[in-house]
Amino acid sequence: MESVYHRIRNQHLQYKVVSAEEAASWIKDGMTLGLSGFTRAGDAKAVPMALAERAKTERLKVNVYTGASLGSDIDKLFAEVGLLHKRLPFQADPTMRKKINQGEFYFIDQHLSKTSEMVRGQVLEPIDFAIVEAIAITEDGMIIPSTSVGNSMVFAQHAKSIIVEINMAQPQALEGLHDLYEPGRQGERLPIPITKPDDRIGSVGIPVDMGKIRGIVFTNQSDSPSTISVPDKETDTIAQHLISFLRKEVEAGRLTKRLAPLQSGIGSVSNAVLHGFLKSEFTDLEVYSEVLQDAVFDLMDAGKVSFASCCSITLSAPAMERVFPNLDKYRDRLILRPQELSNHPEVIRRMGIIAINTALEFDIYGNVNSTHVMGTNMMNGIGGSGDFARNARLAIFVTKSTAKDGNISSIVPFVSHVDHTEHDVDVVVTEQGYADLRGLAPRERAELIIERCAHPMYREQLKEYYNEALTRGGQTPHVLEKAFSWHTNFAQTGTMLHKMLQTG
Amino acid sequence: MESVYHRIRNQHLQYKVVSAEEAASWIKDGMTLGLSGFTRAGDAKAVPMALAERAKTERLKVNVYTGASLGSDIDKLFAEVGLLHKRLPFQADPTMRKKINQGEFYFIDQHLSKTSEMVRGQVLEPIDFAIVEAIAITEDGMIIPSTSVGNSMVFAQHAKSIIVEINMAQPQALEGLHDLYEPGRQGERLPIPITKPDDRIGSVGIPVDMGKIRGIVFTNQSDSPSTISVPDKETDTIAQHLISFLRKEVEAGRLTKRLAPLQSGIGSVSNAVLHGFLKSEFTDLEVYSEVLQDAVFDLMDAGKVSFASCCSITLSAPAMERVFPNLDKYRDRLILRPQELSNHPEVIRRMGIIAINTALEFDIYGNVNSTHVMGTNMMNGIGGSGDFARNARLAIFVTKSTAKDGNISSIVPFVSHVDHTEHDVDVVVTEQGYADLRGLAPRERAELIIERCAHPMYREQLKEYYNEALTRGGQTPHVLEKAFSWHTNFAQTGTMLHKMLQTG
Repeated sequence: MESVYHRIRNQHLQYKVVSAEEAASWIKDGMTLGLSGFTRAGDAKAVPMALAERAKTERLKVNVYTGASLGSDIDKLFAEVGLLHKRLPFQADPTMRKKINQGEFYFIDQHLSKTSEMVRGQVLEPIDFAIVEAIAITEDGMIIPSTSVGNSMVFAQHAKSIIVEINMAQPQALEGLHDLYEPGRQGERLPIPITKPDDRIGSVGIPVDMGKIRGIVFTNQSDSPSTISVPDKETDTIAQHLISFLRKEVEAGRLTKRLAPLQSGIGSVSNAVLHGFLKSEFTDLEVYSEVLQDAVFDLMDAGKVSFASCCSITLSAPAMERVFPNLDKYRDRLILRPQELSNHPEVIRRMGIIAINTALEFDIYGNVNSTHVMGTNMMNGIGGSGDFARNARLAIFVTKSTAKDGNISSIVPFVSHVDHTEHDVDVVVTEQGYADLRGLAPRERAELIIERCAHPMYREQLKEYYNEALTRGGQTPHVLEKAFSWHTNFAQTGTMLHKMLQTG
Repeated sequence: MESVYHRIRNQHLQYKVVSAEEAASWIKDGMTLGLSGFTRAGDAKAVPMALAERAKTERLKVNVYTGASLGSDIDKLFAEVGLLHKRLPFQADPTMRKKINQGEFYFIDQHLSKTSEMVRGQVLEPIDFAIVEAIAITEDGMIIPSTSVGNSMVFAQHAKSIIVEINMAQPQALEGLHDLYEPGRQGERLPIPITKPDDRIGSVGIPVDMGKIRGIVFTNQSDSPSTISVPDKETDTIAQHLISFLRKEVEAGRLTKRLAPLQSGIGSVSNAVLHGFLKSEFTDLEVYSEVLQDAVFDLMDAGKVSFASCCSITLSAPAMERVFPNLDKYRDRLILRPQELSNHPEVIRRMGIIAINTALEFDIYGNVNSTHVMGTNMMNGIGGSGDFARNARLAIFVTKSTAKDGNISSIVPFVSHVDHTEHDVDVVVTEQGYADLRGLAPRERAELIIERCAHPMYREQLKEYYNEALTRGGQTPHVLEKAFSWHTNFAQTGTMLHKMLQTG
């Protein structure tokens, strides 16, 4: 039990060790749970699994709040066993997605910086149990998170009871990398004193009322590795266009070769784009982002990134093997924060972050859909893209210009769902090129987007729509009865391409 | 000339007095101008008018940046004489609106807190002349603004040259009420040290390089009074619903009777809603808003509002007569700030403002259109509504449930333009009732909005759409081919009402 003493440093807490099954048995039908976990990293694993097991044989519905998506197939399990009543603020699991879109339970898609305000402000159902993964609990009762911080702090501090999962498989060297800070209630708080990515402002763990820790469960299971695909020719080209744009900003004197702190969304495209910086002239870069994916560590190894602040480290299996046993190498260059702070509008606006996020589709005026396939079906959620894009120095959205073998154009007349309005979108980039929309009126935007970003096979079709719209007039010309015709055509015929263009 | 010495306190500057015509003659075709003025208050008057006069007989196109809309029919004049190439970030004049929608010049609709970042960041065309109204210039060259601050500070500090209009008709007692603060460049700035509405953090005037002041013009013309209409039965009912909602928040312990700092959008509905607080139990209220309209002074007079921070004071003619000669009475309860600060995300989120803004229309899922009539024609602009709604403790949108004698429903299946996404809309209020959308999934939102906010004559029709959408499934069910059918029906038949319902 030596390891127990080392991981549970307060002797009163050492008597709280229980099995996952016992901890799960405390959870009742109708309760609300706040789980650690952000994009497959640092999720509580054993208790949620034991809970899902229970739900197979008894009536059990709970609300589940998390940081973001969970790993270890927990979201899949939860969805399969019908455990959920309400789930927020993000998910990324195919099974869960399917059930959400079938309306089997409620999913609330939130700006990731906002969930904490709603918990603190007592707007959401109160949290009965916070279930958080940790690498240790200190003598004074601070919970040391693992590979993500997410919403663990606000969940633990506001939950009626806390269950801690101490995961022996997580690198102990994570201790000391976290920076936990509670901003306080709106109307009573002071400025958040972060002015640069490497500012440390809080404690290395989550201070909690020890009396609320009801149980501690030991686990020994690594995070699920991320499944990002390797950069391909198109994502490489997107990266090159983005770098050309940034190069022009440096030439114009608006940026230096250090650029500004970078944020990059989760996923293969974002990772590939960030990867593109390896071959750029930019140097001494800083990252202030939600999630660090493989590319950031590659950039650190290459001496390109000097510091990275995040709320989660989510790596592929090979990157995990490379990074986690060597955390000491990155120790002085890493901070893990609550997602409320990694995504805080105040800090993002102050530092003037360059935000790079992925669009599902965008329209000729620069409105972006990040979430809803064909306007109705949830993909993952808006995540932090809104926190960053609205407040960034440069709000950049990237996507391939087509999907589904060219049958979907990512540039459409009117996005079928709006997550980011024209006001919040500075630059759009596809493998075709980039459009710098800053200071442009809608009519100027449309011409540039069609010319620079649309795939050639859809360009004439977009022009046709836009020219017809121009005959109707307006600040933002549209032909409303045809605005979604591309989407409805796809639903009916399997392609957004007009028939004439297909045959001709 | 005693008054000149009193208003131009630096003797070197006293030689800079010129006529409006002379100052206007310095402006060349292709230049960019930064004008003071925010919702009819504190606009430069004589030089813009002299400039418009010139444009009647010579080729002259300029870019015009302002705080927000101008008074004194300047936007109307500019539009009529064809002076404009590009106009930003807001306007509210019927003639200008018409020309924008005809595509005669470019209009860029911006979050009002953002224009300053774009000027400072050298993203927009550089400003050749800042033309700012003042009540005085101090001995050390500080420009004391008049009834609005708007973007005057960033314009004056970044323009190549400055023209000051000293308006003798503006109350001299305004001096000392302003609080000018320059946050600095993104990436180099410190936290903005405002934690409550009455915090003073800057200087009483705009510090400028005196050498840049090229001319000073004396004027003597009051601001245009606002044209808000008096509260009617429907706006009274909206106010009562809003107060009922806030009362429940107090009962739930989420607010006290002091509520939280209030922001209220510009216009008759917002003014009427704020007026409703006169008859409420709420007391010792604070206002942290863009524009103070009549209602705020009524609330101060009634002892309901203890402090008000703004970037503009825009009053009706009777309120002007009451307030301006008695400014000393309000002196300790007023601050006028740059719009960047009155609308700063950092401050709004920190204080947890209650933001009340007007919607043109909203949809069954809570997306809000603030700007575009029938999806294409610009009304005024998004103004500060995005700055506030995204960062507020409570983002509330109000509107009457119908317009045009009932032929338009303000609640539609799919808004024809999105300014505020479902993520940023907490509560919607019409004269029918309010819907508290916090923590609700799209399907829950739809049911509540239709039931509580839609006009009874459109309720069945909305249910019909929603029920058909449910057969298609999805997180946010829609029938895309019918999503804009209400708008296209209105365009074709003059009403959104289905024929069957009209006759039946």
